[in-house]
Amino acid sequence: MNQDHYPSRLLESAITEFAGLPGIGKKTALRLVLHLLKQDLADVEKFSSSILQLKKEIRHCSCCHNISDTEICNICSDRKRDHSLICVVETIRDVMSIENTRQFPGIYHVLGGIISPMDGTGPGDLTIKSLEEKIAGGRIKEVILALSTTMEGDTTNFYIYRKLSKYQVTISTIARGVSIGDELEYADEVTLGRSIANRTLFEASFNNGKAY
Amino acid sequence: MNQDHYPSRLLESAITEFAGLPGIGKKTALRLVLHLLKQDLADVEKFSSSILQLKKEIRHCSCCHNISDTEICNICSDRKRDHSLICVVETIRDVMSIENTRQFPGIYHVLGGIISPMDGTGPGDLTIKSLEEKIAGGRIKEVILALSTTMEGDTTNFYIYRKLSKYQVTISTIARGVSIGDELEYADEVTLGRSIANRTLFEASFNNGKAY
Repeated sequence: MNQDHYPSRLLESAITEFAGLPGIGKKTALRLVLHLLKQDLADVEKFSSSILQLKKEIRHCSCCHNISDTEICNICSDRKRDHSLICVVETIRDVMSIENTRQFPGIYHVLGGIISPMDGTGPGDLTIKSLEEKIAGGRIKEVILALSTTMEGDTTNFYIYRKLSKYQVTISTIARGVSIGDELEYADEVTLGRSIANRTLFEASFNNGKAY
Repeated sequence: MNQDHYPSRLLESAITEFAGLPGIGKKTALRLVLHLLKQDLADVEKFSSSILQLKKEIRHCSCCHNISDTEICNICSDRKRDHSLICVVETIRDVMSIENTRQFPGIYHVLGGIISPMDGTGPGDLTIKSLEEKIAGGRIKEVILALSTTMEGDTTNFYIYRKLSKYQVTISTIARGVSIGDELEYADEVTLGRSIANRTLFEASFNNGKAY
């Protein structure tokens, strides 16, 4: 495959490492490595150690399974947040996306993925049991499922729904519909269909999507 | 600038390091860092050490200034190559590009950049003196200038030309013209103009660009 002529084994091995990252090809890897080579040794040491230190010292919040520097993450230890409202997401990136909206007052539960037989991910690989234990504790009023609208996401939604339906808890999913700013004619049929079926009262739209 | 909410200081510092690479934004950096986090510790250690080792142990060929693991690089120590023919390039990436064509039988001279007053790069920052010493040795027959066709490239070409013109050496530049496979109507005027001015004999085009 690789017919490139590298002038140095060391260079080649660094390029191979960078080219192993998602979305980074050999050419980009070469550019990144040469960029780092031009930096001071101290900067390269900082770069190199930052990722190693993260890998070695990374911890997960024992409550929501989000990445955290402490035993309990900032969100879970925030007393101002609504601890009776849990938003279930796949990854920590989803937590960051929802946090950036500043619209969600509750806490999170990071599954660590979705059920996907194709990728060999079963319910046991996710933090579903820990979620069920939380709900069984009886202090949670509502669980919002915020997973992908893929087949796997729907499967996971349904699996969690069946696990939790025996408890006294409201289970909801985030609204799916036409994006704000989008024109109807360009929305896909499934989304448009869902947005009509799940229409909201006009008065509820006054607060510009601020649900809380 | 950064309004993102990172759940961990360690994560944030790793993302900041990756986002410092050219062409990598915060979102891509997050994706790369989370990808590395999913790998085994040994793999992350390998990634981390590959770049640090490269930076610490990298050497430059004392002859052509290309990156090399040894005192003299593979190309310069190859006796089958024509050591009377030198191709002057800006960076080691150019060496790799030309090597990949398998068309060049000579050796290289890596300048380490081009003269650019805007970026504060003067002739003294480049390896021009070392090139002149090589030519003064009297064993070089031809110098091919293969620099960018930018204002800076032309300035550097002219500077080197003036430095070397007092020696008994042929100085040439690589051909500029319409790319193979390109249609004339889409070629820019300067390139098309040059390709007419520097037309080659039809017979010379028989060997499909194989100059040697």
